[in-house]
Amino acid sequence: MMRGAMVSNPKEAAFTEAFAQRISKADDGSLPLVLSTVVTHLHELIRELRPSAADWRKMIEFLTEVGHTTDERRQEWGLLFDLLGASALVDEINSRRPKQATPNTVRGPFFRADTPKRISGSNISLDGVGERLAVFGQLLDLDGHPIEGAEVTTWQANAAGFYENQQPDLQPEFNLRGVFKTDREGRFDYLTVRPAGYSVPEDGPVGKLLGQAGCSLRRPAHLHFIVTAPGFQTITTHIYDGSDPHIDEDAIFGVKPELVHEFKCSDIGGKPGWRLDFKFLMARAREGSGS
Amino acid sequence: MMRGAMVSNPKEAAFTEAFAQRISKADDGSLPLVLSTVVTHLHELIRELRPSAADWRKMIEFLTEVGHTTDERRQEWGLLFDLLGASALVDEINSRRPKQATPNTVRGPFFRADTPKRISGSNISLDGVGERLAVFGQLLDLDGHPIEGAEVTTWQANAAGFYENQQPDLQPEFNLRGVFKTDREGRFDYLTVRPAGYSVPEDGPVGKLLGQAGCSLRRPAHLHFIVTAPGFQTITTHIYDGSDPHIDEDAIFGVKPELVHEFKCSDIGGKPGWRLDFKFLMARAREGSGS
Repeated sequence: MMRGAMVSNPKEAAFTEAFAQRISKADDGSLPLVLSTVVTHLHELIRELRPSAADWRKMIEFLTEVGHTTDERRQEWGLLFDLLGASALVDEINSRRPKQATPNTVRGPFFRADTPKRISGSNISLDGVGERLAVFGQLLDLDGHPIEGAEVTTWQANAAGFYENQQPDLQPEFNLRGVFKTDREGRFDYLTVRPAGYSVPEDGPVGKLLGQAGCSLRRPAHLHFIVTAPGFQTITTHIYDGSDPHIDEDAIFGVKPELVHEFKCSDIGGKPGWRLDFKFLMARAREGSGS
Repeated sequence: MMRGAMVSNPKEAAFTEAFAQRISKADDGSLPLVLSTVVTHLHELIRELRPSAADWRKMIEFLTEVGHTTDERRQEWGLLFDLLGASALVDEINSRRPKQATPNTVRGPFFRADTPKRISGSNISLDGVGERLAVFGQLLDLDGHPIEGAEVTTWQANAAGFYENQQPDLQPEFNLRGVFKTDREGRFDYLTVRPAGYSVPEDGPVGKLLGQAGCSLRRPAHLHFIVTAPGFQTITTHIYDGSDPHIDEDAIFGVKPELVHEFKCSDIGGKPGWRLDFKFLMARAREGSGS
């Protein structure tokens, strides 16, 4: 598709100016400015790539196929922007917080808002399939004081790399999901199984194209968390398994150093298993902000 | 959606670098370079617009709707790129020719490859509905010599602004279409009806959004032509009706000054009508080029 270096040409620049001029006469509101910014960047991209008519048709065919692969159960656009690092960038832009605070990372498509509450110490592996893992978390503010009564929602893939809502016929409903409350010391803990890493969908146009281009389609093993506490900024994040061989090539660019932890060999209820310990550091909500 | 000026931030730039690094390890071929160029511009756009999570969801919903509006009969992606001036820019990039030569403009979606041949002087208005128009064209090379035996395909909307393949139940098949051969003087002529301007589809997500943003959805009245002659660069172009009130706001950015002509009052076969005279100036095909 790339046919030459960028060439500046007044006839080519004219279309960008024509669009901007036309839209500047439009009604107020942010939409005209947003669109003319989109057009400026889109035209720059085209002038740089210089697609042939055949390249351009192929691009339209790709978008058409992405559109037709998307349905109520599958968001191929979301996958495209995940794999292009755009979702992670949007998340970064919207979750700035003090340096010491636990960073956000993308929520992903497998969250369920109707996850049941569990008491601390519960086993959320409803089928018991996999290597045992005991999770011990603690929630602190930036001065090191525990945060009591916070709500911690967790979800994860099973030992084969599948979420329960991907396998409604194979896993019990709400397998490997739970909502916990932190105690006076800010602690919560539960039993589960060690999650496996997995591939994002490879059978659609996005997985095929990006795989062909040499992009990683692997997600290293991880646990998901959403942590909410009154007066604090909500944390939506992962804890990653540092020993996963794909830890440096997360398909969706979600790994941050603060989120990588070690799963340690441990005796769990008299049997061999794993133990994970971590702290979440929450920043106070900004004045007038809802989160 | 626009929430602030562009901010440079190493954490935000990191995603662009991470993508470029990862893909630079990929196989050869142009795809990795194309994708990393796309990502560079996409990330720049995001850093400039700084969409909120809600803005971003709305954008994904828009793309989802465009995808679902596209089917075998309707190319909503094509319409989107037409209205953003991107199709015209791609066409400009791919049809550079000497300054005096007749410029290309977009072909549009209503062309039919199976258009029947007609002899010069034919009437291509098969239903006779509309104001009579006599078209006189002449095809010359850049030195002013006539080009004999060239093939001129024409198609146009009717007096209500519809192409025959938009109204298969209302217009005769191949109404207002024909393929002509130029004579020894490079001339061709035919009878037709004066076309009306029209709106691009307004009922889909693209027409709705761009209309709301203040973009023009109108196409000024025009005739389409594709002109081919051995040894010359094919011309795919329009002749526009200079008196159309929307001549300065063609929705798809296809108007170029050389293509705007005057439809003159004239006696056509003893009845009042219009007459259109124009020349097409063809450039020689470049060595080794197929067109």
